[in-house]
Amino acid sequence: MNEKDSELMAMALNQAREAAARGEVPVGAVLATADGRVLAQDSNRVEALSDPTAHAEILAIRAAAAATGSPRLGGLDLFVTLEPCAMCAQAISLARIRRLVFAAYDPKGGGVEHGARVFSHATCHHAPEIIGGFMESDAATLLRDFFKERR
Amino acid sequence: MNEKDSELMAMALNQAREAAARGEVPVGAVLATADGRVLAQDSNRVEALSDPTAHAEILAIRAAAAATGSPRLGGLDLFVTLEPCAMCAQAISLARIRRLVFAAYDPKGGGVEHGARVFSHATCHHAPEIIGGFMESDAATLLRDFFKERR
Repeated sequence: MNEKDSELMAMALNQAREAAARGEVPVGAVLATADGRVLAQDSNRVEALSDPTAHAEILAIRAAAAATGSPRLGGLDLFVTLEPCAMCAQAISLARIRRLVFAAYDPKGGGVEHGARVFSHATCHHAPEIIGGFMESDAATLLRDFFKERR
Repeated sequence: MNEKDSELMAMALNQAREAAARGEVPVGAVLATADGRVLAQDSNRVEALSDPTAHAEILAIRAAAAATGSPRLGGLDLFVTLEPCAMCAQAISLARIRRLVFAAYDPKGGGVEHGARVFSHATCHHAPEIIGGFMESDAATLLRDFFKERR
C-alpha cells in the first residue's frame, strides 16, 4: 500500500463521515483507476433513497459504469471503509473490479471474509485482489461512535 | 403454489422474453403482495443501462422500494425466472422479502442453491421462504434458445 492508497481510503472515510451526519450507517466507497484517478465516490444512502441496494459500493459502481459507458470496470480499484456484504461482493465480481481494499472487517454483515465468502467459491467468475484491514482503526472508530450515539 | 403464482411467474417470463428481444440475458422478475398485487416488474438491463447491478431482481426491488417509500419490503413475494446470483440474494435478504419463487436453477451463477448459498449462513439476518424450480422448463427453454442463437 502506498501514499495514494491512503489518500483514496481517506476520501472513502470522508464519505462515511458524511453518511453518519445524515443518519445513515457510515460506509464510504471510492472507485479509482490504477494510477489513482477517482471515477466515482459515494456513501451509504439506503434510508435517503429508500433503496435497500443503495450501499456505498453499489452506488459507486453504478456511477463509474455510467461514466465509462460500460458495465465492466476491469482495471479499477475499489476503496471501501467496511468489508462488503455479499450483495456488494458479487457486484464487484460482476463489474470485474481489479482490486478491493477495505478498512474494517464485518463479522456480522460481511460477505468477503465472513458469511457467504462470495469470492471463495469455484463458480465465482472473477475475484479481485483483496486487501482487508487497511486503515481499519479509523473506520472502526467511526462505526463504533455512530452506533454508540444511537443506543 | 396456486393459479395466482403461475400468473405471476408467467408475467416474469414475459419480462424475460422482452429482455431476450433486446439482446440481454433473458431474466425477468415480478414483485407482488401476498394477495397477488404487482408492485414492480422488470428484466435484466445490464447492457442497456451500462450497469453491472441492473439484474431484473435488483431493478424490481429498487422500483418497489421507491414506490412504497421504504427500503424494507417485508410481506412481498419475488417471482424470478432464474435462481438469483449472490448479489440479488443478498438484496432480497436486505429488503426482507417474504417469499422467493424462482424457475430455472443456475449451477454456474446462482447464489441460493449453488456457490455462495447466501441464505444458508448463520450471519444471514433474513432468509425468505424459498421455492425453486417453479415453471422451470419454460425458463430453461428461453435461456437455452437465447444462448444457442448467440453461439
